[in-house]
Amino acid sequence: MTSSPEIRHDGFLGGALRFAQPAEGYRAGADAVMLAAACPARPAERVLELGCGAGVALLCLGWRVRGARLTGVELQPQYAELARENARANDIEARIVTADLGALPAELRAESFDHVIANPPYFLGGTAAPDQGRGIARHEGLALEHWIAVGLRRLRPKGWLTLIQKADRLAEILAALHPAAGTISVLPVAGRVGRDAGRVIVTARKGTRGPLRLLPPFVMHAKSAHLQDGEDLTPEAQAVLRAGEAINRRDI
Amino acid sequence: MTSSPEIRHDGFLGGALRFAQPAEGYRAGADAVMLAAACPARPAERVLELGCGAGVALLCLGWRVRGARLTGVELQPQYAELARENARANDIEARIVTADLGALPAELRAESFDHVIANPPYFLGGTAAPDQGRGIARHEGLALEHWIAVGLRRLRPKGWLTLIQKADRLAEILAALHPAAGTISVLPVAGRVGRDAGRVIVTARKGTRGPLRLLPPFVMHAKSAHLQDGEDLTPEAQAVLRAGEAINRRDI
Repeated sequence: MTSSPEIRHDGFLGGALRFAQPAEGYRAGADAVMLAAACPARPAERVLELGCGAGVALLCLGWRVRGARLTGVELQPQYAELARENARANDIEARIVTADLGALPAELRAESFDHVIANPPYFLGGTAAPDQGRGIARHEGLALEHWIAVGLRRLRPKGWLTLIQKADRLAEILAALHPAAGTISVLPVAGRVGRDAGRVIVTARKGTRGPLRLLPPFVMHAKSAHLQDGEDLTPEAQAVLRAGEAINRRDI
Repeated sequence: MTSSPEIRHDGFLGGALRFAQPAEGYRAGADAVMLAAACPARPAERVLELGCGAGVALLCLGWRVRGARLTGVELQPQYAELARENARANDIEARIVTADLGALPAELRAESFDHVIANPPYFLGGTAAPDQGRGIARHEGLALEHWIAVGLRRLRPKGWLTLIQKADRLAEILAALHPAAGTISVLPVAGRVGRDAGRVIVTARKGTRGPLRLLPPFVMHAKSAHLQDGEDLTPEAQAVLRAGEAINRRDI
């Protein structure tokens, strides 16, 4: 698949990593990098990504946290294969399992993880996307509450679940997490100061009982909307998107 | 009760209103004013406050929205009586019903409202407060989800429920609202820029289907934490707390 004309190679983290992705269809971008940055993994900890696509989030995390033990699950074989290629090409060890979240293989069901990360599909039902890969990646195969339930099951006690999602699904996420999931932290991600959050990064620590935290927004862009994206990143967004730094400091 | 030594008179909205409140025990403050400011009521609309205490939120709302038809429900007769006195003293018409939210009188159960507002008790169980009034007002007589259920039942279709609550109970609130309550808007209220939200103001429009909005934070204080509260209010906080302006522009 590497030499297929549909594949493009994109630089991430200021060019530190390069990932092969389909030129058309579902393509990981800033959200995947933000997800990786928000996961408070430490070296030697086990990290599972649900729906890892071409592996961008998982491998950005592996690059920052050297020695983290990475597993990605991906339903679509062509994306799973890209994730394996991307791991090899960037010299980051990762196990990629081709499987449906609703029917994980016994091998995975026997394991537990310190961290589960996911960027579940953003669009519910409705209009079909032009190609099938994009369609499956963008639309719900499985409802968001099931992604959360699968993630929580695979976590060890006190393990961290980290999700990035459209902000308008916050009620759905918190309803699925409450009250079983334990301490929750919500990070609003806003395009600019004074705007609604477009994304939320929600972290939940399994089985703990601390108070929910609603953090100050993470703001992506500094100036007017008339500049091109990327030309006006805030210092905090540059630190994450260009330098691959962490967002979260295990604050729950 | 007016001449009792336990009662103090406090100015609100830059002195435009004066309210008698117990000197000790549960006392309304900035949260009640914020709640009033966030309710998008218009003249002639029917507003119900659940647990209105001495009437501060309800009457601040009535002062801003002249002609709104105000009803407050309060369990504790001494607070209900203060609310009636405060309405009279400030020349704002309001019906105050002494009743338990869990057993509203038939008169109220036969009515529906354009708006329901509430500032449910902040503390769950645990340590008892020194006086009984404060104890009942601060602690849960009824779980937060029941406050929400009672509020939604009393709303007309497309009516607005507006709550202010500690931010750490956001999951509980959204779980109780989702998916029955319809379009939801979450306003984080933070003490200062860059701090966690201490409060959330959650608005839900009954039976509607719009996307949830996570608004940019409303920030109370502008400068360092070393000044006295109130000396360093942001312009937006001054507009609400001193001038009695609205926060919300029927944005859902």
